[in-house]
Amino acid sequence: MQPQLESTHAIETSLRATHEPWFHHVVRLYPHQTDYSGIAWHGTYIAWMEEARVEYLRSLGVNYSDLVNLGYEMPVVELNIRYHRSVQMGAEAIVKTRLSSLQGVRMNWEYRIESADEQELYVTAQVTLVTVDLDKKKIVRQLPAQVQDVLQRLRGQ
Amino acid sequence: MQPQLESTHAIETSLRATHEPWFHHVVRLYPHQTDYSGIAWHGTYIAWMEEARVEYLRSLGVNYSDLVNLGYEMPVVELNIRYHRSVQMGAEAIVKTRLSSLQGVRMNWEYRIESADEQELYVTAQVTLVTVDLDKKKIVRQLPAQVQDVLQRLRGQ
Amino acid sequence: MQPQLESTHAIETSLRATHEPWFHHVVRLYPHQTDYSGIAWHGTYIAWMEEARVEYLRSLGVNYSDLVNLGYEMPVVELNIRYHRSVQMGAEAIVKTRLSSLQGVRMNWEYRIESADEQELYVTAQVTLVTVDLDKKKIVRQLPAQVQDVLQRLRGQ
Amino acid sequence: MQPQLESTHAIETSLRATHEPWFHHVVRLYPHQTDYSGIAWHGTYIAWMEEARVEYLRSLGVNYSDLVNLGYEMPVVELNIRYHRSVQMGAEAIVKTRLSSLQGVRMNWEYRIESADEQELYVTAQVTLVTVDLDKKKIVRQLPAQVQDVLQRLRGQ
Repeated sequence: MQPQLESTHAIETSLRATHEPWFHHVVRLYPHQTDYSGIAWHGTYIAWMEEARVEYLRSLGVNYSDLVNLGYEMPVVELNIRYHRSVQMGAEAIVKTRLSSLQGVRMNWEYRIESADEQELYVTAQVTLVTVDLDKKKIVRQLPAQVQDVLQRLRGQ
Repeated sequence: MQPQLESTHAIETSLRATHEPWFHHVVRLYPHQTDYSGIAWHGTYIAWMEEARVEYLRSLGVNYSDLVNLGYEMPVVELNIRYHRSVQMGAEAIVKTRLSSLQGVRMNWEYRIESADEQELYVTAQVTLVTVDLDKKKIVRQLPAQVQDVLQRLRGQ
Repeated sequence: MQPQLESTHAIETSLRATHEPWFHHVVRLYPHQTDYSGIAWHGTYIAWMEEARVEYLRSLGVNYSDLVNLGYEMPVVELNIRYHRSVQMGAEAIVKTRLSSLQGVRMNWEYRIESADEQELYVTAQVTLVTVDLDKKKIVRQLPAQVQDVLQRLRGQ
Repeated sequence: MQPQLESTHAIETSLRATHEPWFHHVVRLYPHQTDYSGIAWHGTYIAWMEEARVEYLRSLGVNYSDLVNLGYEMPVVELNIRYHRSVQMGAEAIVKTRLSSLQGVRMNWEYRIESADEQELYVTAQVTLVTVDLDKKKIVRQLPAQVQDVLQRLRGQ
């Protein structure tokens, strides 16, 4: 019986990135993203979180579209989001994200969407992705080399 | 000290609607709702869930736009969604929803999105709404009469 | 010099469908389709026009997704739209469409978006599509048999 | 009969801006903006054109949301768009815009959407806006002072 080993493992798969600064992606709320209430429609944040993920990967040297051309994609399998305050039309916001943990094939991303001055919290969220082989239409157990490199680098930081 | 009373209360605020048939809202996946992978973009379901909520209220005699004209709105404050399978372009889906519980000012809605033949489960989700007074920009403790009537009817079923 | 022949040809390629009743696709304006002004965001109509096209083809026996699986798609190459009045949140609208003419490989669709009682005109538009071979990434001169059948039927009406 | 005067007038109302460099707004195509064909859904460009307009006004000192708070908005009344080539997922594009002419209360904007290296033309478009008084729900004959200042500056360049 070695519960310690299991928890050690859990600690290992929890990336050190969670102690690192967040990746920042700056956005602005345009009219097409508002709804009748004059603020962001609640689905807008889902799009922004995807954009932040794509930009984060790009900053690490992985173009998401290259990954798709290689026959992989990373669909969202779970998404939990809490809305604290609303972004006003015309306002800038910072979408902060980081990879919080790896659970087998599941990549967990953490989000905070804040005002430009970082004084107001709009949204907190967790998004879980898996990697899918587009031909086999199956979740891959082994991440593509490109992605492994990135994760390696994150762990090694 | 009466913990029993509290749990009785909890049972009372859990609407009987959870034992009732779900409200069904039928949708079809159009090209503009797909993404590069040829299936529904994961934010599309957020829009469908909103549509189902609006249609459910309408079926109960409440036009959401009337509510807004009266000075109220019902923003989403929390949303948890799990993606099980993907809707293919051109396919019909049923967005099933019901009010699962009331926690003070929080209305919890439950969702299941299924294939037209109800044999495949695409998405399960929970969405929490509050009611906001648009002038005061504050959450109301007392639901507007129109909404109370609807909830009363649901409880009385 | 036979300008008459040319104009005869032009008449032939102008489908009789233009004298036929329009195809009707009924929609309702949901919160996610509004913007800060409380009415439909102007891009919403573009999505509705696509939906009406897909439903029109379906009513004629062509599933757009089957066409894509066969290796074809019908992208929009030109779109002209005039906004007359706005659809209010919660209102129903009828998206009326018909194939107005064929110019070589170009299919011209005509649109009128009206109120449910057909007393108010919201939008008039023309949309031009071509048929593209997805493998060759080229516009096809010869329409796929499925589409030809449909056009034949429209002409023959 | 003075057709010359009329054409002189036409020249005057055609802003000198048309001879000026275009305003540039840089965008990138994210997954949520693609459709099943792996490229930009054709409505995506409508959103980008709105963003470019808002950023152009901002660069001239007018926050569109301030204008709305003052009781004005600038809805699109006409939109003509031609699709030449498609933006690929992950690619950057430049949305170029300029105010091409004023016809009474109508402001005509011209658009070119190009690849990042300006070697490929994706889209050309014209968009016509009017200014509406949100309280009276009527088109204003007299532009709000803020906007007049901006136009004055454009003419004076």
